[in-house]
Amino acid sequence: MDFVIQHKKGKLPQLDNPILIEGLPGIGNVGKLAVEHIIDSIGATKFADFYCKDFPPQVFINSDGTIELVKNEFYYWKSKKEGQRNMILLTGDYQGLSSQGQYELVDTILNLCKKLGVKEIYTLGGYGLGQDIKKPKVLCATTHKMLVKEMKKHGAVFKQNEPGGGIVGASGLLLGLGKLKGFKGVCFMGETPGYLVDPNSAKAVLKIIKSITKVDFDMSALEEKAKEIEQIAQQLKEMEMGGNEKAEDLKYIG
Amino acid sequence: MDFVIQHKKGKLPQLDNPILIEGLPGIGNVGKLAVEHIIDSIGATKFADFYCKDFPPQVFINSDGTIELVKNEFYYWKSKKEGQRNMILLTGDYQGLSSQGQYELVDTILNLCKKLGVKEIYTLGGYGLGQDIKKPKVLCATTHKMLVKEMKKHGAVFKQNEPGGGIVGASGLLLGLGKLKGFKGVCFMGETPGYLVDPNSAKAVLKIIKSITKVDFDMSALEEKAKEIEQIAQQLKEMEMGGNEKAEDLKYIG
Amino acid sequence: MDFVIQHKKGKLPQLDNPILIEGLPGIGNVGKLAVEHIIDSIGATKFADFYCKDFPPQVFINSDGTIELVKNEFYYWKSKKEGQRNMILLTGDYQGLSSQGQYELVDTILNLCKKLGVKEIYTLGGYGLGQDIKKPKVLCATTHKMLVKEMKKHGAVFKQNEPGGGIVGASGLLLGLGKLKGFKGVCFMGETPGYLVDPNSAKAVLKIIKSITKVDFDMSALEEKAKEIEQIAQQLKEMEMGGNEKAEDLKYIG
Amino acid sequence: MDFVIQHKKGKLPQLDNPILIEGLPGIGNVGKLAVEHIIDSIGATKFADFYCKDFPPQVFINSDGTIELVKNEFYYWKSKKEGQRNMILLTGDYQGLSSQGQYELVDTILNLCKKLGVKEIYTLGGYGLGQDIKKPKVLCATTHKMLVKEMKKHGAVFKQNEPGGGIVGASGLLLGLGKLKGFKGVCFMGETPGYLVDPNSAKAVLKIIKSITKVDFDMSALEEKAKEIEQIAQQLKEMEMGGNEKAEDLKYIG
Repeated sequence: MDFVIQHKKGKLPQLDNPILIEGLPGIGNVGKLAVEHIIDSIGATKFADFYCKDFPPQVFINSDGTIELVKNEFYYWKSKKEGQRNMILLTGDYQGLSSQGQYELVDTILNLCKKLGVKEIYTLGGYGLGQDIKKPKVLCATTHKMLVKEMKKHGAVFKQNEPGGGIVGASGLLLGLGKLKGFKGVCFMGETPGYLVDPNSAKAVLKIIKSITKVDFDMSALEEKAKEIEQIAQQLKEMEMGGNEKAEDLKYIG
Repeated sequence: MDFVIQHKKGKLPQLDNPILIEGLPGIGNVGKLAVEHIIDSIGATKFADFYCKDFPPQVFINSDGTIELVKNEFYYWKSKKEGQRNMILLTGDYQGLSSQGQYELVDTILNLCKKLGVKEIYTLGGYGLGQDIKKPKVLCATTHKMLVKEMKKHGAVFKQNEPGGGIVGASGLLLGLGKLKGFKGVCFMGETPGYLVDPNSAKAVLKIIKSITKVDFDMSALEEKAKEIEQIAQQLKEMEMGGNEKAEDLKYIG
Repeated sequence: MDFVIQHKKGKLPQLDNPILIEGLPGIGNVGKLAVEHIIDSIGATKFADFYCKDFPPQVFINSDGTIELVKNEFYYWKSKKEGQRNMILLTGDYQGLSSQGQYELVDTILNLCKKLGVKEIYTLGGYGLGQDIKKPKVLCATTHKMLVKEMKKHGAVFKQNEPGGGIVGASGLLLGLGKLKGFKGVCFMGETPGYLVDPNSAKAVLKIIKSITKVDFDMSALEEKAKEIEQIAQQLKEMEMGGNEKAEDLKYIG
Repeated sequence: MDFVIQHKKGKLPQLDNPILIEGLPGIGNVGKLAVEHIIDSIGATKFADFYCKDFPPQVFINSDGTIELVKNEFYYWKSKKEGQRNMILLTGDYQGLSSQGQYELVDTILNLCKKLGVKEIYTLGGYGLGQDIKKPKVLCATTHKMLVKEMKKHGAVFKQNEPGGGIVGASGLLLGLGKLKGFKGVCFMGETPGYLVDPNSAKAVLKIIKSITKVDFDMSALEEKAKEIEQIAQQLKEMEMGGNEKAEDLKYIG
C-alpha cells in the first residue's frame, strides 16, 4: 500500500494550460470554503480522490447512512469562453497529520499536477488576526517576484514581514516544493478573526480568483452563509456581554 | 521484518462465502466483548495471529507464567446448518497506535480477507453516550445504500448525522478502505454510557449478528457479565452519592 | 543508512551454546545495573556497538573530553570451567524511543543472536512496587511452560497475574518476538520501590543468574552501591519528615 | 521523493582540505548567529540547499513578497592567504523535528562532507546556564583525545562532566556519527543565559574559530547586535523589577 492512494474515476482530464486552485481546512476554513464554493457554483467535475495513511483513520457518515473514508478531492472545469482559465480544484477533509506526511502528500499532488499540465498554482487560506475585521484584505505571497506586481493588479495586498511565521501547511508547501519543481505559485490569505468559519473572508479571496480566472461565478450562497455566521457571532458576543461564562469557549467553534 | 507479521498455524481455512466479524478494543469494549463471546460460545478455531510494529512493545503474562506478545487474532467457524453463515472472527489486544499503523494493519487484514473469500465485513463497536442507557439501541452505517434497508430489517437503527464524528479506528477503516477494494460492509455501534466495559451493549449488538448469521449462540455468559458490571456501576454510584471523592475516578475504569 | 548500525570490532565471537543476558535502562535501572555488574566482575569483552535512529540524537561526554554517540553494547564471555555457561551480554544507554523502533531494534538483536548461536535469552528488569521492600523477590515469566518449573528451582517466583500490565520494552519484546523465532527465554524482574536506582534488587536478580550460569562472580561492588543508595534514600526520607517540600521531587530521581 | 532533497546550484566546490563549521538553531541561537556572522563577514558563497521532510511543512516570506521553503544551507570560502583554512559553512532554519529525521539529515550531511574532502568538523552551539554571565567561556568536546589538548591552546575550556546531559541535536550527532565514519570533530559551546539570542556568546565562540582558521574576520556587526540585545535584556529586567507580570514571559523570547 502506497503512502497515498489515488482513486481515479476514468482517465485524467485533458485541459489546455489549467491552473490549480487549492483550499484545504485551515484558519477560519477560508481556503476550503472558497474552493468548495467555486466547485458548487461553476459545477466542476470530480476526477480523483486521494486517500492517505497520514490522514486520521476515520470515516464520515453520509446522510443516507453510508460511510466515506476521509480524503482529498480533485475536480476540473473547462472554460466556456475565451480568456477564461481552465481549472483543477483541490479540497478535502484533512491535511496530513505529520510533517513528513504533509511533504509526501504535496509531492504526490505536484506530480499529478505535472501530468495534468498545470504550471500555475493558487493556494487559498486565512490569515488569523485574532480580532474583528470589517473589510478583510487579502494578503499574498508568491514563488516569483514578477508575480507580486501582477497580483497587486488583481487586488492582492503585500505587507512586509506578514505573516511573520510564514505559511504553514499545504498552502505553503505547494508553493515551496512547487517552486523547486518549476511551478509558479501564489498564496492568497484572507484576513479573518479566525474564531469561526469565515465566508466573508472567503468571498474576499474569491473576488481575486474571479479577476484571475475571468470566470464570473455567483457569490450569493457564500453571502447567505456569511450572514448566518454573522448572526451566530453576534449571539456569541451578546452572551459574552451578558456575562455568560461559556461564551468564551463558544468563540472558538470552527 | 515486515510491518505486520502473520503467524499462520497450518493452512488458511476453506470456507464458502464467509463473512468477517471484527471486534477490537474501543468504547465500552463493546466490539471486543461481542466477538470474544461469539468465539467462545460457538467454539471457533484460531488460524492466525497478527503481530505489528505499531502495537505497544509489550508481552502479557498467561496464568501459567508464560508470555504472549500482544497481537490480533483470527478465528473461523464453519456453519452447521443450511442458511447459516460461515464466519471469520477478528479480535485482539490493541488497535494500531499511529494513524499510519492503523491504515497498514487494516490493509493487511483486507488482503487476508480477499484470500479467504470474504466479501462482507461486519465491524462491531460502541457508541458512547456519556449517560446511562436502559435499552441500548444499535446504530449502523454501511458501505452501500442497499445495505441500509437490509440492516433495518435486522433491527439496526440509522440516525442522521450520528455519530457526528464518524467512526474512528479499525471499525471505520475496514469499511472505508474495504469499500475501495470492493468489499461490502456494515458497522454496528451499540449505545453505551462508555464508562465501564458494557456487556449489555455487546448483547444488543449480538442480537443483530444472530439475525444476520442465523446462528443461535448462547448469551448467558454475557448476561452474567452484564449483571456483574451493573453491580459495580451501582456501587460506584452509591460511593459517589455518599460523597466519596475517589468515586469520580473510578467511574472511568474501562 | 540502516535503522540500526552495527559497528563490529573484528569478527563475531565463536562460543559454544551461549546464552544472551540483557539489561537495558528501566524501572530502578535494575536490569542495566545487573548486566553492567556482570560485565565488570567477570571481565567480559566488548565485540559490538549498536547505534539506532530511534535513540535520541545525542552524544555523551567522557571524562577525558571525548564524545560517545548513545548506543547499545554487546559483550561476550567464555566459560573457564566445565558446567559454566558462555555468555553474550547486552546493555546500553537507551531503549528505542518509539514502538516501531523497539520492534526493529529487538528484531535486529535477535538476528545477531541467531548468528552467535544463542538459543536461550535471559532478560533482566525491575518490578516497581511503589513502596519500600526489605527482601526483594525476583518475579519471572518465560516463553515456554517447561522453563517455569526450572526457574523455580533457581529461586525465581511466579505470581499469578503479576505484573498485571505484562512486560513493556526490550525485556518483554526479546521474549515475545524471540518465541516466534524459536528462542527460549526468561524474564527476571527484581522487586523494587522504583524511586531510585536499586542495586539491592539487581543483587537479588544476579543471585539467580549465578545459579543458572554456574559462574560465581563477586558481588561486593554492588553491595557497596546498595549501601550508598540506602543512605541517600534515608536522607530523602528525613528531609520529607522534616517538612522539606522539595523532598517530594527528590524521591523520583532515578 | 527522498527524505532529504539536495538542491545543487552548479557543481560542488573544489577545496583543499576544507573544514566544516556548523551552526544551526539551538540554545541562545549561539551556533546559528556565529556561522551566519562568518558567512556575512567573509563573503562565503552558497552552493547547496537542503530540504527535508522532517522540517516543519512551512515557507517563510522574503521582504519582496516571495516565499522560501524552510531549509538548511551550505556555503564555501576559499582561503586568501597561506595558513588560512578553507571552509564549508552550514546553517539553516531548523534542525530535524524527530530523532530519526536528525539521524538521517546528519548522515546525509556527512556523506556530502566526504565528497567535499572535509576531514574536520567544528560544530557551534550554546551551553545554557539559566543565569547571567559576564564573560562567557567556551566549553568544548571532541571526537579524539589528541584534539582536547589542541583546542585548549585555542582557548577552549574542558569541564569534567559538563554538559552533564551531553550534546543533543545536530552539533552532537555530527561528531557522534562523524566519528564512526572517520571524521575528526570538535563541538564549541558558548556559555549563555539562554533566555535571548546571545551575540555575546557567539562572539566568544568565534574568537576560537578565528584562532583555528587564521581568518581575521570583522566582529563589529556582532558587537552591535550584542549591544541591542543587552538593552532589551535590561528593559525586560526593569519591567520585571517594576512588577510587570508579563515580563516573565518576555524573558524567554528567543
